[in-house]
Amino acid sequence: MSTRYVLRLACPNRPGIVAAVSTCLFEAGANILEAQQFDDTDTSRFFARIEFDPAQGALKHDVLQNGLAAAAVRFEMDWRLRDMQQKQRVMLMASRQHHCLADLLYRHHIGELAMDVAAIVSNHPRDSFQGLELGAIPFHFLPVTAATKADQEAALLALIRETQTELVVLARYMQILSPAVAEELAGRCINIHHSFLPGFKGARPYHQAFEHGVKIIGATAHFVTPGLDEGPIIHQDVEPVSHRDTPEDMIRKGRDIERRVLARAVGWALDDRIFLNGGKTVVFRD
Amino acid sequence: MSTRYVLRLACPNRPGIVAAVSTCLFEAGANILEAQQFDDTDTSRFFARIEFDPAQGALKHDVLQNGLAAAAVRFEMDWRLRDMQQKQRVMLMASRQHHCLADLLYRHHIGELAMDVAAIVSNHPRDSFQGLELGAIPFHFLPVTAATKADQEAALLALIRETQTELVVLARYMQILSPAVAEELAGRCINIHHSFLPGFKGARPYHQAFEHGVKIIGATAHFVTPGLDEGPIIHQDVEPVSHRDTPEDMIRKGRDIERRVLARAVGWALDDRIFLNGGKTVVFRD
Amino acid sequence: MSTRYVLRLACPNRPGIVAAVSTCLFEAGANILEAQQFDDTDTSRFFARIEFDPAQGALKHDVLQNGLAAAAVRFEMDWRLRDMQQKQRVMLMASRQHHCLADLLYRHHIGELAMDVAAIVSNHPRDSFQGLELGAIPFHFLPVTAATKADQEAALLALIRETQTELVVLARYMQILSPAVAEELAGRCINIHHSFLPGFKGARPYHQAFEHGVKIIGATAHFVTPGLDEGPIIHQDVEPVSHRDTPEDMIRKGRDIERRVLARAVGWALDDRIFLNGGKTVVFRD
Amino acid sequence: MSTRYVLRLACPNRPGIVAAVSTCLFEAGANILEAQQFDDTDTSRFFARIEFDPAQGALKHDVLQNGLAAAAVRFEMDWRLRDMQQKQRVMLMASRQHHCLADLLYRHHIGELAMDVAAIVSNHPRDSFQGLELGAIPFHFLPVTAATKADQEAALLALIRETQTELVVLARYMQILSPAVAEELAGRCINIHHSFLPGFKGARPYHQAFEHGVKIIGATAHFVTPGLDEGPIIHQDVEPVSHRDTPEDMIRKGRDIERRVLARAVGWALDDRIFLNGGKTVVFRD
Repeated sequence: MSTRYVLRLACPNRPGIVAAVSTCLFEAGANILEAQQFDDTDTSRFFARIEFDPAQGALKHDVLQNGLAAAAVRFEMDWRLRDMQQKQRVMLMASRQHHCLADLLYRHHIGELAMDVAAIVSNHPRDSFQGLELGAIPFHFLPVTAATKADQEAALLALIRETQTELVVLARYMQILSPAVAEELAGRCINIHHSFLPGFKGARPYHQAFEHGVKIIGATAHFVTPGLDEGPIIHQDVEPVSHRDTPEDMIRKGRDIERRVLARAVGWALDDRIFLNGGKTVVFRD
Repeated sequence: MSTRYVLRLACPNRPGIVAAVSTCLFEAGANILEAQQFDDTDTSRFFARIEFDPAQGALKHDVLQNGLAAAAVRFEMDWRLRDMQQKQRVMLMASRQHHCLADLLYRHHIGELAMDVAAIVSNHPRDSFQGLELGAIPFHFLPVTAATKADQEAALLALIRETQTELVVLARYMQILSPAVAEELAGRCINIHHSFLPGFKGARPYHQAFEHGVKIIGATAHFVTPGLDEGPIIHQDVEPVSHRDTPEDMIRKGRDIERRVLARAVGWALDDRIFLNGGKTVVFRD
Repeated sequence: MSTRYVLRLACPNRPGIVAAVSTCLFEAGANILEAQQFDDTDTSRFFARIEFDPAQGALKHDVLQNGLAAAAVRFEMDWRLRDMQQKQRVMLMASRQHHCLADLLYRHHIGELAMDVAAIVSNHPRDSFQGLELGAIPFHFLPVTAATKADQEAALLALIRETQTELVVLARYMQILSPAVAEELAGRCINIHHSFLPGFKGARPYHQAFEHGVKIIGATAHFVTPGLDEGPIIHQDVEPVSHRDTPEDMIRKGRDIERRVLARAVGWALDDRIFLNGGKTVVFRD
Repeated sequence: MSTRYVLRLACPNRPGIVAAVSTCLFEAGANILEAQQFDDTDTSRFFARIEFDPAQGALKHDVLQNGLAAAAVRFEMDWRLRDMQQKQRVMLMASRQHHCLADLLYRHHIGELAMDVAAIVSNHPRDSFQGLELGAIPFHFLPVTAATKADQEAALLALIRETQTELVVLARYMQILSPAVAEELAGRCINIHHSFLPGFKGARPYHQAFEHGVKIIGATAHFVTPGLDEGPIIHQDVEPVSHRDTPEDMIRKGRDIERRVLARAVGWALDDRIFLNGGKTVVFRD
């Protein structure tokens, strides 16, 4: 596939945004391939994602940048323009359960997830991940206890900065980030929770599901916020279970849900498809 | 399809149950067509459902009844044997939203749900159901206010007795049954709740779902117990939603989930596929 | 909900379409609420659907109409602008199986499907539909045999014209339309086929599915074309089945799939969400 | 979990099978934990799968073996009794696409799939699998051309015998087995086909799906038979797609379906849950 550009923008809703932006794209020589727009009448926020073809190299970058900058001022618009071949830098964090990490690494390996894995971070040592092909990706063992949590998180934030990480993925990282870290990473830290939120927050959700006798289990990818398992939901999926399923069976079946839900959410983030909208998200799915 | 019999049984788990029951069926001339058995190692309860062919009329009913009665004593076994052509008597209850009622009545009309509808009961008058073909089914208007709730429920229980109702279906009946009535109807009153329980109990679940920004909505059929929306879950199903869905869209999409979840649960109840197992159910699905 | 307008358009892809149309909408005072655009790089066709708020009655209709007419010439654009409160006229056709018809009528009754039902047409007499509440909708019995097919279809086309029908829905109408009629109704006649096309075309698809031992059954809503069950697919859905399911069980489970797939497709058609794109469709889902 | 035994059996249907087998289990001291039985009235075959607890080591193996052997004669019964801790020996075969192989190996690595991987076989050399952790599993490169196919298959069959392989898994092995090999491996060779069979048999199914404009894609795990993609279906699953999905998008989304469908089918085979029933299967799902 040839290069594509993606433009994402969000702003207070006012008439004229699409006209201004699409006129700017047209004047720069861009050809729109796919676009999705949404006006949230509750929050009065407008969101758009536009993929375009940069005119076989003839894209007038100055026209585009200047036009978008002018529109940004006029409409109080947050925007990002990205060449889709330019990959985001991602940090993957995991604890002892590594099915989500292994899955993301495999998808990265075969080119399905277009990301630069800046680092793998775990509160468990590298030899907990035997049998996983980590390749040349830097691995950082950041153990944590109640006493060392502040230091560990400082080291984590330093590492995020050093590695120029844009997106942090908690791939079954079983530590709760402190509110300060959660706020620092607002909108760029995705967690996978192994329940169909808001049901079964917190620890041992499959055991909670078993106790309740639910007939469906699920997983939820969400942005991390200071509230435990309360952040804006990005994606959810489910599988049926029955009276025959023990908590162990649910854990096994749940692994499949978790890894595909997280991979989908990460893929959408890499593709600039996710927008924060107050306590919720706007996701222009592929 | 020719006649089938269904035998359902539950008892404390002990070796020898299946041997005893299947020997009894064999000696009575029955031919097993389908059977499902489950031993809950948590509750130490054993459950079985056996469909059999009554040997083209040559079934030795005495042998079967005596054998099962003996097994019942020996194994402390609850059991029910039923000719599947003999329909259960069902009371349908609804409030203003009648999509579940309409759906159950249509399925009854075309012979999909093998039940005798003993009565339709509503806290709204019959003319709230214009456009629905109620046929010759007795309709009972039992209005209710906080002041008259005790009397209304007494009338309801009397009606259940008079009509020899075996199964009560709350097809979006928006009144909460009092604990006494819930206990009286334990294991034979099915409710449809318009959320994926245990998420969003109580009122306006789609509005709750909208506020939480969930990406999937659901519905839950469960037995009624004194705890609000806490009874043993029989069946659940879901549909994806997105940021574009308003609460009204969720209500519309939810109607489809509710009616198919409730119809499935009612069909299984009519087919003797559901067993109470403490706060949970065992469902031998078709 | 207040009034909304929907603009749908399709044309050969060229830069500038969105800029022209959105500028026109802006100048007319419209506020875009939701928009979806798609450029099919295979067929080089561009499709867009734009919902907008007509500025509390201040919409400049002349500006809009003239602007869109000019854009239509410039971009060879097919377009339709519609006040969403103005309902499309729909003809429903059914044969002996009436679960899809009953379902569409119920959804119409409760206001879920915004359509004017111009007529119900069947090759079976009205008393085949006892137990269905047809209300005041005109019912036309158009029996058909091999010998009378040409005449029956002529009568059908005449009725479509007389009733100003815009959309014809084959709600399990079990007659094959002749190629001439299929062509006459191209892009405005939706059929529900009771299989997951392209598997199991033609007669008795559930029996075919049973013979093949498939583990999932499905239904397909598609536009009618001269080729049997070959028209552009609008929507498909499925349900799991098992070795326990007889063809009769599949027929029963299939009814649920058929009616929700057809209702979804009809709802999208009423909402101007479906575009023909060669032998395929573009569907901007809700 | 403590040890469990699984007994699987199939025979012509006759009254008395369950009584005989369950009496034998009882006399041997076994306690039934879960059982599923099915009588196919079309083929007049009876199938059962019984999991039982071997009485904390007090299981009378002689009583059980003798009793089952006697029942086998009396009822012409195929049966297999297995200690579930005794793992089956499995050969994994793959070509260039290794997502299914990687997935099965990972599930094996974490103990989810209880199998002994006897060998990995490919028509591509080992370095095609860089980035996969093959561990100590023997890898066999068996290249194949039209001219060498007979020899390659002879080598394959020899390897299957030498390694005492019980189950062969074609994990996207893109060579068609000759009829003789398919017959030799009847009922113990599982293939994953990347379409929702019987739709889109043969090559490039996602491209076929794209051309047809289907709205759902799927994958099918089936036993290999001499007919291409015609063998008894074990499991199928699907995902929605839209007009936005290119064939490449379908291939990407399809990988997720393929690997979970194949892993599920392999897990059921390892668990003795799958029975051949003419051209179909009986699957007692977990």
